[in-house]
Parts: sequence; C-alpha cells; structure tokens
Amino acid sequence: MTKERITSMHGAGGEVAGKLLEELILPRLAELPSDRLGVSALDDGATLPTPRDGELVITTDSYVVKPVFFPGGDIGKLAAAGTLNDLAVMGACPTALTLAAVIEEGFLISDLERIVDSFVSELKAVGVALACGDTKVMPHGDVDGIILNTTGIGVAARAISDASIQPGDHILVTGTIGDHGMALLAARSDFHLETPLTSDVAVIWPLVEQALAVVGGVRAMKDPTRGGLAAALNEMARKADVCLEIDEASIPVRDEVRGLSELLGISHLDVANEGKAILIVDPAHAKDVLQTLREHPLGASAALIGEATTEYPGRVIVGTKVGGRRFLDMPLGDPVPRIC
Amino acid sequence: MTKERITSMHGAGGEVAGKLLEELILPRLAELPSDRLGVSALDDGATLPTPRDGELVITTDSYVVKPVFFPGGDIGKLAAAGTLNDLAVMGACPTALTLAAVIEEGFLISDLERIVDSFVSELKAVGVALACGDTKVMPHGDVDGIILNTTGIGVAARAISDASIQPGDHILVTGTIGDHGMALLAARSDFHLETPLTSDVAVIWPLVEQALAVVGGVRAMKDPTRGGLAAALNEMARKADVCLEIDEASIPVRDEVRGLSELLGISHLDVANEGKAILIVDPAHAKDVLQTLREHPLGASAALIGEATTEYPGRVIVGTKVGGRRFLDMPLGDPVPRIC
Repeated sequence: MTKERITSMHGAGGEVAGKLLEELILPRLAELPSDRLGVSALDDGATLPTPRDGELVITTDSYVVKPVFFPGGDIGKLAAAGTLNDLAVMGACPTALTLAAVIEEGFLISDLERIVDSFVSELKAVGVALACGDTKVMPHGDVDGIILNTTGIGVAARAISDASIQPGDHILVTGTIGDHGMALLAARSDFHLETPLTSDVAVIWPLVEQALAVVGGVRAMKDPTRGGLAAALNEMARKADVCLEIDEASIPVRDEVRGLSELLGISHLDVANEGKAILIVDPAHAKDVLQTLREHPLGASAALIGEATTEYPGRVIVGTKVGGRRFLDMPLGDPVPRIC
Repeated sequence: MTKERITSMHGAGGEVAGKLLEELILPRLAELPSDRLGVSALDDGATLPTPRDGELVITTDSYVVKPVFFPGGDIGKLAAAGTLNDLAVMGACPTALTLAAVIEEGFLISDLERIVDSFVSELKAVGVALACGDTKVMPHGDVDGIILNTTGIGVAARAISDASIQPGDHILVTGTIGDHGMALLAARSDFHLETPLTSDVAVIWPLVEQALAVVGGVRAMKDPTRGGLAAALNEMARKADVCLEIDEASIPVRDEVRGLSELLGISHLDVANEGKAILIVDPAHAKDVLQTLREHPLGASAALIGEATTEYPGRVIVGTKVGGRRFLDMPLGDPVPRIC
C-alpha cells in the first residue's frame, strides 16, 4: 500500500489531476457497462441511452458519513447503495450513476483506492455504468476527509410515488430496522462501544425488482434512511393523507440493535437504515409480495408490520407490546450528525 | 435579514429539515418549469421527460469556491452556470438540474437564501427545472461554509465530442480570458487586491445555441474552467491528436486581467473562466459562427485565436507578440485551490 497522499493539484484540472483519473479511476471501471460516450471519454459530459418505454427517474444525494470506513461498509459502498436505493423505491431499474468527490488535502491515496473499489464493485453487481465524475480537493482543514455525491438515473415502467396509499393497505419492511444507524453510533469514537453489529448497507434493487415482478399491488415504497422508520412512515402518512398503524412486536430488530437502543436512549426507529425498504401493498397481494421478499437473501427477515387506516390521517400510530397505542412522531432529526 | 443559522437538525431528515425545505427552498421554485414529478413532490426521486429525438447528456460538478460571495457572482450562480455550461459545450439544451448542498453548522440562513435565489434565477433564465435535491449538515469545523454539487441533464441533437477536430479547423473563443480566476485571486483575503474586475460567471447556453443554429461546422467545444485556456486546449489537442496553434495577440484579455497576471506571476491562460467557451470550427463556417457569437451580448468580444495543424500532434503552440513561438503546456494544476 502506498503512503502517497492527495495534494491540491489532484483537484486542479491540470496534469496531476489527469494522472489521478487515468491511474486510479479509469482502470477500475474496465468491467462496468459503457456502450455510450462515458466517463472514460474524459469529455465535458456523457451520453445516456434513451429508454424506449417507461419513465426516466433521477435522484441525488451527498454522503458525509463518519468514520469513512465503518463496520459493514465504507463511504464508497454507501454512495452507491444510497442513491441506487432511492431509484429502487421509485420503482426504477438503475442505468447510470455519477460520482463527485470532494477530498481533503493529505487524504491517503490508498484509502481513496479502497473507496473507489468498493463503489465500483456495487455498480458492477447491478450492471450500472459510471456516466461521469468530478474531483475537487480542499486544503487541509477545509473539509474533514472525503465527501461523495452521487446522482442516479434509472428507468421505471411506472414511477412509484409515495402518495398512492389506500386505507387497508398492508405495510411491509424488507428486514431488520436500525442496523446502519446503531452500527455507526457504536463505531463513532465518542461512544467506544464494542459490538458485532454491522451496517446493513446494500443495494436493494435486486430485491425490489423481484417484489415488483410478482403480481403487482405495490402502491408505495420508501427507504428509511435519515430519521429512520419513524421519519419515512410519517412522510408517507402525510403525503397520502392516511393513518399508518404499526405493531411494535412485529418489527424485525436485531438483539444488538435493541440493546444499543436501550443503552444509548436512542430509538432504533429513529435511526438510518441503508439496505432496507418499506413497501405499502394492496392487501390482496401482500402475502405474495412478502413471500417473494423472504425468498431473496436481502429480504430473509421481511415482515408485515401494520396497515393503513383512516383513523388519524397524516399520523403514524404504534401498538406497543404491552397492548397500548401511541403516536410515533416524525423525529426532529437524526440524533447524531454524519450518519450517512 | 434573519440572523438564524443552520443547525445539525437542518440536515437530519426529520421535522426541522422538512421545514427548511418547505419554507426556504420550495417557495423559490414556484416559477421554474415542473411538468413532471419534481422536487416539490418531496419523493425519493423525480421523473424526467424522455426526449423524442436526440441524445440524453449528463454531467456533474462540485463547487467549493472561496469566498462564497465573490465579485460578479456567488456559489449558487456558479453551481448553475458551471454545470449548464458543461452541457452546453456537449451541444445539449439543458432540461433539468439537481442540487445537493453540504452546509457547515452555523452557516447563516440569510446567506443560504441569497445563494438559492441566485441559483434559481439562473435556472429561470434558461427555463430549466430543478429535478431533485439533498441537504446535509456537517458539524462546525468539519466543512468550511458550504459546498454545492449539481448534476445536469440535457438533450443534444448530436452530442459534440472533443475528439472530432480536423487540421485546418479554426479556434474561436467566445470572449475575454482569465476573468473568473483573476477576480477570485484578487478577492481572496490572502491577496487583498482592489480591482474593478468581476468574474465572468454566466450560463452560456443561449450563446452556444445561437452559434450551433447557424450553418453547422462546430466540430468541438470546451469550457475552459480549471486550468484555464491552457488546460482546455491541451486536452482537446491530445484527444483529437492534432496540434492547436494560437496567436497570443488575438486572445481577448481585459487590461485588469493582464495587470493582475503580471503582478501575481500567474498566467491568465492557466486560470478558470466560468462564462466562456472554446469552439473549434470548420474553416468554411468559422466566419459565420464568429459573426453570430459577436451578435450575442455574451459573445461581444469573441475572437478567432488560432487553428488546428498537423505540426506537433497532441501539443499546443502559442505565437507570441514579438514573433516567437513556444509550447503552451498543460498546467500542473490551477495555481490556487477553491477557485470554483
């Protein structure tokens, strides 16, 4: 491993920046699809295939996670999965990503290599092209480590909005809740907690694609990232003007997550997931969709956790294990910064 | 003007983040085109119109400019113009932009409002939609001020690559060279230079569109941003494997830029422009294209500065005022960080 570090010249658009691109980035893209004028043409932009049918979908996200390497993944994997998952919950098959990096002067080039490898391997797994990229370098102290931004382009037969939920619809989650947020909290130097828990960061399109292919009936989807399950359900309830009622006991939660949640006083329902989706499904098809989810490794612990009602439109209600019921509010924010 | 500041909660995906979006961002988008599921639907992504003809073009850039407000513009205007100009030099009419902001905790909300206003007014001027966005907040000290990323989507009848230059082609620039870089250098606190010079930051699609509409003959285009005219010409010469020879005396340069260039010992050919393009044109059409450029306010000082030859393939040669000739090398990098 080289101990070379990023210098200001690597982000300055000249000879040195060109070398970084040619030596570090381009060789790593060799196995990605590239049937169009793409990143390796080193032009001002790239061309994308125009879909014959369906709708073009676009989404963008920046990633500021700390630490950059965390249990179960790193910022490269997160930057691929986070944006591809936003496409997935729109019902869109991903076709291309962009990657823009802002790097602190002095950042280890070997760390950058690991991050790019990790990013590219996620793209490879789902056959997505890197369309274009950008690198900026900021002086030491002007940014902490590295920030990535990815924009995703996909094609949906019909884009799935969050607004189409009907009373009676069933609420499914594709797996355990709270893993990413709690793994990050445990890994943060300010907590020093030892736990085998790892982030759930993963690209969920293969799982979602399978669920959509079954029999139809998926009315809305959302990936519960910042603000966790609580924020995602509240957003959906408000937008569709329905009440979403969930049963606490049926939410799949790892023991370690439950333990950390109690220890830290931070609800696992309020923290980010990076490899999960909420699916709201026509009750006639909910059983089939759940079965399909469970047949995929990424959905092995999928569960039915509740249903949409007319009781308190725009609100989320959680039924507790002891038989009570309470409102599950939109969190004010994720309890700690730089979780994703 | 409010003295309210950004807090970590504004980037945390919960109630407070929602308020920022609803109160600061959405009202400012009212006059932008939005015929599809766009940013105001607050969904996980947006849908884009699929072009009936032509090629979809995509480009991405991050903006880390310092200071955020500089003579002639600000980071909001730059984030719109920089990305729209990359589309323009691909020959693409812009259709949508994304906007992702990473903001330091404590950043003045009134400054953010000015930046968003400035960004949106550029989009309005060219009728471009804001498709989707993202906001992250980093703790005080983890990022200096604000970083923006924009991804642009456009449609080109035929995407113009940089690789199609023929020997004999004429080299045009759309206006004065070095304005942005020198204005920024002068404005940086470390220099304290007083000058009336302002950045040339501007969206050049209206100018480029007019030039493309004339008679054809535009073989390649590039916007000389980081690394300036020198970097852009060297990239084009290498990619097309031709020699590009320019005449120093015919390059339009403001007196203030020439003065600062001499004072600072930094060549105006090596620093960024943010409202200019290089056009390489079939000699049969060069006169008409130049005339058309000059008829537009953004191209009033457009000039023919040289031509492509076979002399030193991949290299750039500059003829000096006193009659000598020298290689104009690819700069190692832009001479100062955070210029764009």
